[in-house]
Amino acid sequence: SLKGYARSGNSGATMKVSGRIHADLWGYPDPSPGVNGFETGDNNDPPAARLGFRRIRFGVAGDLWKNTLYKVEMEFAGGNDVEFRDVYLGLTELPILRTLLIGNQKRPYGLDHLNSSRYNVFIERPFVVEAFNQDARRFGICSYGVSEDEAYNWRYGVFNQRLIQDEGNYISNHWQCQIAGRLANTIWYDECSDGRGYAHVAVSGTWADTAGDQNTENYADSGINEARFRTRPEARTVSRWLDTGVIDGADDYSLLGLENVINVGAVQFCGEYEQVWLQRDAASELQFHGGYFYVSYFLTGEHMPWDRETGCLGRVVPFENFFLVDTCCDGVRGGWGAWQIAARYSRLDLADNDIQGGIGDSFTFGMNWYWNPYANVQFNYIYGNIYDNSLNAAGGIDDGDYHVLGLRFRCDF
Amino acid sequence: SLKGYARSGNSGATMKVSGRIHADLWGYPDPSPGVNGFETGDNNDPPAARLGFRRIRFGVAGDLWKNTLYKVEMEFAGGNDVEFRDVYLGLTELPILRTLLIGNQKRPYGLDHLNSSRYNVFIERPFVVEAFNQDARRFGICSYGVSEDEAYNWRYGVFNQRLIQDEGNYISNHWQCQIAGRLANTIWYDECSDGRGYAHVAVSGTWADTAGDQNTENYADSGINEARFRTRPEARTVSRWLDTGVIDGADDYSLLGLENVINVGAVQFCGEYEQVWLQRDAASELQFHGGYFYVSYFLTGEHMPWDRETGCLGRVVPFENFFLVDTCCDGVRGGWGAWQIAARYSRLDLADNDIQGGIGDSFTFGMNWYWNPYANVQFNYIYGNIYDNSLNAAGGIDDGDYHVLGLRFRCDF
Amino acid sequence: SLKGYARSGNSGATMKVSGRIHADLWGYPDPSPGVNGFETGDNNDPPAARLGFRRIRFGVAGDLWKNTLYKVEMEFAGGNDVEFRDVYLGLTELPILRTLLIGNQKRPYGLDHLNSSRYNVFIERPFVVEAFNQDARRFGICSYGVSEDEAYNWRYGVFNQRLIQDEGNYISNHWQCQIAGRLANTIWYDECSDGRGYAHVAVSGTWADTAGDQNTENYADSGINEARFRTRPEARTVSRWLDTGVIDGADDYSLLGLENVINVGAVQFCGEYEQVWLQRDAASELQFHGGYFYVSYFLTGEHMPWDRETGCLGRVVPFENFFLVDTCCDGVRGGWGAWQIAARYSRLDLADNDIQGGIGDSFTFGMNWYWNPYANVQFNYIYGNIYDNSLNAAGGIDDGDYHVLGLRFRCDF
Repeated sequence: SLKGYARSGNSGATMKVSGRIHADLWGYPDPSPGVNGFETGDNNDPPAARLGFRRIRFGVAGDLWKNTLYKVEMEFAGGNDVEFRDVYLGLTELPILRTLLIGNQKRPYGLDHLNSSRYNVFIERPFVVEAFNQDARRFGICSYGVSEDEAYNWRYGVFNQRLIQDEGNYISNHWQCQIAGRLANTIWYDECSDGRGYAHVAVSGTWADTAGDQNTENYADSGINEARFRTRPEARTVSRWLDTGVIDGADDYSLLGLENVINVGAVQFCGEYEQVWLQRDAASELQFHGGYFYVSYFLTGEHMPWDRETGCLGRVVPFENFFLVDTCCDGVRGGWGAWQIAARYSRLDLADNDIQGGIGDSFTFGMNWYWNPYANVQFNYIYGNIYDNSLNAAGGIDDGDYHVLGLRFRCDF
Repeated sequence: SLKGYARSGNSGATMKVSGRIHADLWGYPDPSPGVNGFETGDNNDPPAARLGFRRIRFGVAGDLWKNTLYKVEMEFAGGNDVEFRDVYLGLTELPILRTLLIGNQKRPYGLDHLNSSRYNVFIERPFVVEAFNQDARRFGICSYGVSEDEAYNWRYGVFNQRLIQDEGNYISNHWQCQIAGRLANTIWYDECSDGRGYAHVAVSGTWADTAGDQNTENYADSGINEARFRTRPEARTVSRWLDTGVIDGADDYSLLGLENVINVGAVQFCGEYEQVWLQRDAASELQFHGGYFYVSYFLTGEHMPWDRETGCLGRVVPFENFFLVDTCCDGVRGGWGAWQIAARYSRLDLADNDIQGGIGDSFTFGMNWYWNPYANVQFNYIYGNIYDNSLNAAGGIDDGDYHVLGLRFRCDF
Repeated sequence: SLKGYARSGNSGATMKVSGRIHADLWGYPDPSPGVNGFETGDNNDPPAARLGFRRIRFGVAGDLWKNTLYKVEMEFAGGNDVEFRDVYLGLTELPILRTLLIGNQKRPYGLDHLNSSRYNVFIERPFVVEAFNQDARRFGICSYGVSEDEAYNWRYGVFNQRLIQDEGNYISNHWQCQIAGRLANTIWYDECSDGRGYAHVAVSGTWADTAGDQNTENYADSGINEARFRTRPEARTVSRWLDTGVIDGADDYSLLGLENVINVGAVQFCGEYEQVWLQRDAASELQFHGGYFYVSYFLTGEHMPWDRETGCLGRVVPFENFFLVDTCCDGVRGGWGAWQIAARYSRLDLADNDIQGGIGDSFTFGMNWYWNPYANVQFNYIYGNIYDNSLNAAGGIDDGDYHVLGLRFRCDF
């Protein structure tokens, strides 16, 4: 026994203690009256600036014996309102099912949701990815696999649709299940440059059975009809400006998503598109859709690494870490870290038929300064425009535009 | 300093980081109208199915210098509603007092409460153990000892009766103290087979001073009269179906408990009985009582280990762990893990005199599949019957019967 | 990889897992009717006794690469109401700025707040330190430095005034910033005796811009005018007995603090004084002030160590740790631990002009029994007297006196 070192609870367990801190500063200069209404319900009361924590997480993960794994990660940024994130146990090396996880885990659609918030290029995720997979994680059972040559990877499973990370349990007599999956192919990976060049395509989808007859909250906030799509303006606000509301009489919906990433050295191109078809009891089908495209570029020449096992972004490693030291004899010496710029165009259409939940267009300019592989600073400027949004309008103004400035300090350990 | 390893905060501290995940699925097919009323207050509204987390815990424990110990364990399964569990500091190796713990710890009665939820044979604990020692842990000071030959072990202490794991403090001018103790004797332990055969008897009890004049909630939900006994139907439900309510004018109560365990190889017999005598100011004495008996059997030949230091169940170790691997040349190979079946009969009588809090009979069939020493799956089928339960009845129906199906995935680390 | 040991999440991260447990018992014998009113709003309803947890903390901290650090520490003593404490990331070894931390951290005024609760001589901190820097930590960016000879140390930064450890974010269009700093000088440090003799002086201050026009709670309890000073009676009570309330029309305030510590072997003298000048829109300036003085003495000869890097108290190390062991042959053998006595006089004046928030005088006798460097017991007896407190009075009685008995078991790991 090594004195002064922390052990895992069982001798048969391996353990990693990990976490992240994301500290934010947000400002909303010059919003239009319609946008004031989306946020505060009052056309004269603008969105408030915000500072504080976006994520304060830590937790433990590891293996039990050879083929069982576990993970618990808590989110403490809400102060009194703690939530859990990844919480699961699972088996590995199974035939056919490969790795099988049981518990709270990300639903397998929307690349930018599957990308860790530690590695996202922009501060907040795009409209469509948040709207169609709000907060991503659900209680379910999901299989994860990868082909031997790492060209293909896939995940598929059954999930309950209720977000329970703040409640702990789903309590209802309507199961509200969904099946979901994603198949990804790394169609090109330049081994010689250790992955500075690659291309990825993926297709994902879900079929979700919603409780069309339950449009009000049941016991413990569980059991309500989960047919609702909504999102914030790719920035932290109090309200979700694009929001269909709970869709009355929604029986089920289907989603199809397409992903594409091309990376050539310091440059990355990435795009996604998702479409939802929703069936209603006594009214016509609804269709919602959206997508985004971004290009990013490292001024300092690094690249965005790719994880071929999961089909997701990896951790950026600067060529030279950032430091500034006052040496006794040589004056101040330093390293620059890595610098990246990026631009994103994003669109979401939640307005169809009688459900006018808004159409949003958003342009984001981003700049990231990576101090070292574990800490960085993100700056975003966003200009957006929303219309056809009568469901969330105040004072009859269903459109508006806005500017956002966002700054994030981000580290993980 | 070993890079990449976690240290304890003080060089003088040892530390174990441990935790557990219990993920549940519950269904309530075909309940009778009376049972609907116990759960929802409406004879036509049945208990809802439930899926989610029963326990998500992690925390730290260790020693400070040679003779001081500490433990903090948090329960995160409630989402926003975090609670603490074991939280104490203590001294060891004291004369007479042996190990002395100060803080939140289990009251020393009810064997199946003292058994860790990591090792319980059935998914949920029996009626009587839950009803007379709800949630087990209280703030107190308690001494733990064991005889040199490990034949005898004991614990006794003084506790406050308020459950504070959700509140942090008890705030009142009535102390509501109780003294409680347990003396256990491992009357037989087969050293040759390393404990495949053993027998255990124990007697436990408490005397609790309750605040008969405080029948309403005081500040911060503290200070109410703690004379109340209640429990769920040995399954996770929203309401507690057997419930005396807060007993008006309760001055104090006494409890006596008896335990017996006999283990012969793969077979275990276990039984407990507890009786409460409660004195009231202006009304007659009340008596409540209950007990249970179970038999369990390992189809694969393992046994339930016994911890002679604490007089509790230990960790099951399968002869062969469960695994399934697709080998290149030999096809799929695997190990079965350990399989156990068990049956429990349980009874609780909370109906006496004017307090008709219900009489329950419950039969449980259980099947446990141990993947390895740290992970397993539990399945329970329960049939139960409740009557004389006017205090919790809706629509005048004070009896009913029910079926429950429960599934738990359980691991600890 | 060392089996059974916990790793940090990143190979590039160092990690310490640390925490503390403070378990309390408080009694309020014989309070006067005025004091009853301050606490409960009813002159006949006295303060209630209290037992439970004052602090249950754990968290992680460490370095990322060579020059980035992180810390997350959670407070779990509130049960359901979890809060965060130190949560920051930062850079070290910078020219001029030295260590720069971004996140939730202590504002740099009030020595006894900067002293860790692990090392405070008295159970609770003095009036003035709590009143003018309630709960100490705020979201901000702060620089920490120390001179090469360790004679001088300093910290200065910009903070938001809102306490967000229970909320996570500050949301408002009035920034409510403050600048704050502290310059400390260890004017004498006896290296020969390894610091058994030393003297410390420091000056600290802040200028805080408050939102005079926002006297009601805004969204998410954020954005209210932060011009409010209040504190409990140097003991854990439900209400804060000295309280100016939110001061209408407060534009800004300034604070000046002075500190002095002299330590001669087992004896320590310590004093602080702080004054606040508050400017109002439409009314005259307000002045509030307070201070305290204490002397402490180790009966067993140890001393209070001093940390010259931060200008704060360090960890007491007993000459002989406390233990009691029943040896087979020699009878009971033991060590006494360290014993310290202390006396504190404290005063706070929150009554000026139309704001009669109370004047308090308090005398505390303390006795500390250190079991070992990591665990100890504190006992306090307090006698206090409050007057000119019409803002918090019930039944027209604006003065009163009280006695408090407090006991704390304290450990950290």
